[in-house]
Amino acid sequence: MNEQAKQDRVRIFDTTLRDGEQAPGCSMTLREKLKVARALRDMRVDIIEAGFAAASPGDFESVREVANSIKGVTICSLARCHEGDIEKSARALEPAARKRIHVFVATSEIHRKFKLEMARDEIVRRAVEAVRLARQACDDVEFSPEDASRTEPEYLTEIVTAVVEAGATTVNIPDTVGYAMPEQFQALFEHLRDTVPGVENVVLSAHCHDDLGLSVANSLAAVVGGARQIECTVNGIGERAGNCSLEEVVMALKVRADYFGLDTGIETTGLYPASRLVSSVTGMHTPRNKAIVGQNAFAHEAGIHQHGMLKHAETYEIMRPESVGMHRSNLVLGKHSGRHAFRDRTRQLGFELSEDQLNRAFIEFKKLADRKKELFDADIEALIVHKDTAAMGPWRLRELRINTGGSTLAVAAVRLEHDSGEQRDEAAVGDGPIDATFKALERATEMSVELIHFDVRSVTTGEDAQGEATVTARWGDSSYRGRAVSTDIVEAGAKALLEVLNRALRAKARLDSGKAAKRGPRRRLGP
Amino acid sequence: MNEQAKQDRVRIFDTTLRDGEQAPGCSMTLREKLKVARALRDMRVDIIEAGFAAASPGDFESVREVANSIKGVTICSLARCHEGDIEKSARALEPAARKRIHVFVATSEIHRKFKLEMARDEIVRRAVEAVRLARQACDDVEFSPEDASRTEPEYLTEIVTAVVEAGATTVNIPDTVGYAMPEQFQALFEHLRDTVPGVENVVLSAHCHDDLGLSVANSLAAVVGGARQIECTVNGIGERAGNCSLEEVVMALKVRADYFGLDTGIETTGLYPASRLVSSVTGMHTPRNKAIVGQNAFAHEAGIHQHGMLKHAETYEIMRPESVGMHRSNLVLGKHSGRHAFRDRTRQLGFELSEDQLNRAFIEFKKLADRKKELFDADIEALIVHKDTAAMGPWRLRELRINTGGSTLAVAAVRLEHDSGEQRDEAAVGDGPIDATFKALERATEMSVELIHFDVRSVTTGEDAQGEATVTARWGDSSYRGRAVSTDIVEAGAKALLEVLNRALRAKARLDSGKAAKRGPRRRLGP
Repeated sequence: MNEQAKQDRVRIFDTTLRDGEQAPGCSMTLREKLKVARALRDMRVDIIEAGFAAASPGDFESVREVANSIKGVTICSLARCHEGDIEKSARALEPAARKRIHVFVATSEIHRKFKLEMARDEIVRRAVEAVRLARQACDDVEFSPEDASRTEPEYLTEIVTAVVEAGATTVNIPDTVGYAMPEQFQALFEHLRDTVPGVENVVLSAHCHDDLGLSVANSLAAVVGGARQIECTVNGIGERAGNCSLEEVVMALKVRADYFGLDTGIETTGLYPASRLVSSVTGMHTPRNKAIVGQNAFAHEAGIHQHGMLKHAETYEIMRPESVGMHRSNLVLGKHSGRHAFRDRTRQLGFELSEDQLNRAFIEFKKLADRKKELFDADIEALIVHKDTAAMGPWRLRELRINTGGSTLAVAAVRLEHDSGEQRDEAAVGDGPIDATFKALERATEMSVELIHFDVRSVTTGEDAQGEATVTARWGDSSYRGRAVSTDIVEAGAKALLEVLNRALRAKARLDSGKAAKRGPRRRLGP
Repeated sequence: MNEQAKQDRVRIFDTTLRDGEQAPGCSMTLREKLKVARALRDMRVDIIEAGFAAASPGDFESVREVANSIKGVTICSLARCHEGDIEKSARALEPAARKRIHVFVATSEIHRKFKLEMARDEIVRRAVEAVRLARQACDDVEFSPEDASRTEPEYLTEIVTAVVEAGATTVNIPDTVGYAMPEQFQALFEHLRDTVPGVENVVLSAHCHDDLGLSVANSLAAVVGGARQIECTVNGIGERAGNCSLEEVVMALKVRADYFGLDTGIETTGLYPASRLVSSVTGMHTPRNKAIVGQNAFAHEAGIHQHGMLKHAETYEIMRPESVGMHRSNLVLGKHSGRHAFRDRTRQLGFELSEDQLNRAFIEFKKLADRKKELFDADIEALIVHKDTAAMGPWRLRELRINTGGSTLAVAAVRLEHDSGEQRDEAAVGDGPIDATFKALERATEMSVELIHFDVRSVTTGEDAQGEATVTARWGDSSYRGRAVSTDIVEAGAKALLEVLNRALRAKARLDSGKAAKRGPRRRLGP
């Protein structure tokens, strides 16, 4: 038995940089790949598949650079069962302290016939030669019979037996087209464990695709069937519907440790940061309802649920956001929110309402919630103080003028008015109108913020097209979020940033008055 | 046995308008709900859960309006086990030809203790009363023991037995927190079928959440265990990580009919249009790698795969895009694409290259693909004709001037130059700078396009912040897509639209010359 096969735990083989990266829209530059590889290493994945060295000169270079810079983890390169591919992989992996060559060949009838045009035994011969050659270059060799889940089980036994004899140390069973059902996939692993001599000396691995939404379920079923490695990608990126999502499969094994009784070595607090990193370098944003790492994954709206949540978090949370490196769950208020949730939030915003005030505010809240897609803190504030948040100041945008276009220098001029009556006019140039406007606003308010996130998108199309701008920025130790909609994208951006600046100033004022309140009675709103 | 329970098929209970809509960011207006309900009816879902009538006046009105306008499908309202809720549901459902009241109460220990503060038999009594009351208002009553997957199985038997006796016609088993494992969830259904007297007279249903990425797998496992209704939402929207995705579970049952041997009544060509509709009304975009309906779901990049694909589509496709109402799979070119795919695409673009020309172009293509995230048709064109696409004309943007801001009227002025040497200056006012710019470009080119999609987003943040604009517009019978990046969002928008206009004109020119070519020998490029 090889050293690896001895440990009874589930290894995480990350292929974000190979199978993930080869999906349309997911290509990464070398610098981005190194960033992702570092995050994966820090999260303690077992193997990083850094690329497919023979695919292109750029791929070769990335595998080599990852092998060179990222230590403490096994670095792997994919290779077809060709001498040239294996040699290129071996050369690219030279600088790695721990390395693996991953050779593959298709084995299903449809692939044999239409892609390879090769007979069964020719494929076995090719696989055996490739594994032997790879073993000359490194001790750690993985073999994958592509489209295994659609391959005749007895032929799979034949080829797996042959590559195990030839020296493969990991045998990966890919559900290449996302066709398998969990029960069948589990049975396939059990079949291999029953029929392949020496199978106990290698690590079996699962590689699942999500075409029918079953990649996580199939990977977990494989583990029950005897797999001790899962191939997956951050955010489940990958060809077509993508690969098994690393964060989902890792958290399923962790949350349901009672069921699986098997560990991965993953430091789960790295899951959310890694997800954000991969989103940002690929531009493939995770949807709000993405399991584990989506914006809503730990958020609740419904009042019924919120009531439960406030009483006891586990009522609706089977894991804590902190465990995946996310900040505390936000209870998002919406039309289904109950009185409990509403009162709780108003308290968080620093208001102490009487029963009567709460009742009146709650009725208004319900009405507003019926009309509005989503309620922000700003809406709740506005509801209670009976003022438009945009007008809550202390700063108000009185004028905004933009002059820009093409090669012209972008100029923005703003006129702001403070609650105190003071008026400030400022201008700035910038890279485009948004940049110029932001700089002018910072100058006028004499505040310097660090822009964390800026996003504009069209919320409607056609005649009444509207742009929505969302700005997140840090000021001092805290970050604030502003949002504005306008037919004019630049104006929406300006208003969103001003909201951030104002919210930061109001928060500071509230904090200061809170400190004062500790020395006196708590402020009650209204009569 | 009631009429419903007689049919051995899987009913699709869509809760996009209820469980989906109550997720943060997914609220819909009444008009939007009606649109979605029509799409669901056309797709032939069996039951539409239109809302939770007692939650708010707006919810009541939507249930009533859906009940009033959408015929040929059962309309359902959710209700707690309260008299008031059931009465409101009954009133809201009055106009429906086929209606269902869906009552629920939590049954797990953690919910009993921390949310309801009620004892086991009190909950059973409450459930029985609610089901009886609901049966007085309508023949079709569904009961859900909330958090069933975390409820003691023998208590579940007790309460399910009681509600079946009381007249429930469907019993739904929710995995409220997304905690269940497929094998366990299947066993729970088998347990109920073994222990509940009269269970054969009701329809068992599964309602799964995706917190661990297993909602589809759990729903399918429930079907194997005896469930004949699946509750799901379009795009899998819903609280936290969302609900079981309708399109995934429906296509899994269809693609793997060999395994399940059960039909849904769904017209699957409606899946993609419904997904697009729900994305557009909620603003919750599906990621590119979403199974079934994502932009990449049927797209391949890797050359190895493409070679296979071109030879025989089934090599990598277990279903056809047409079956879900999508247009033919796009082979997206990228750095992993092989020569076969590249040659195929150049032919589609109207080029007939010699072996030698193809070789040279392919080498350049591989180099470009290493540097660039994604290759568009524009890149391939540019590679072959050795020209920058942005400069491919016939129209070029020579100047763009914008004057706007705040309450000011937005004005855009453009100067375009045509390949023929003609120069055109035009101006237009509009709602914001983008609108004004688009109008000026249409005037200058004398082309009138219908804007289908316009999106701007920041692709980077910080000093070198860039905005990316994507424009899709229809001109005549065809639609075209343009994309541009600039630090100036307005400029990016202008360039993207101009690319659309130019591509439309070039396509027309190519078509015209193609017609000419039919009358003469095919054009060969170069010497």
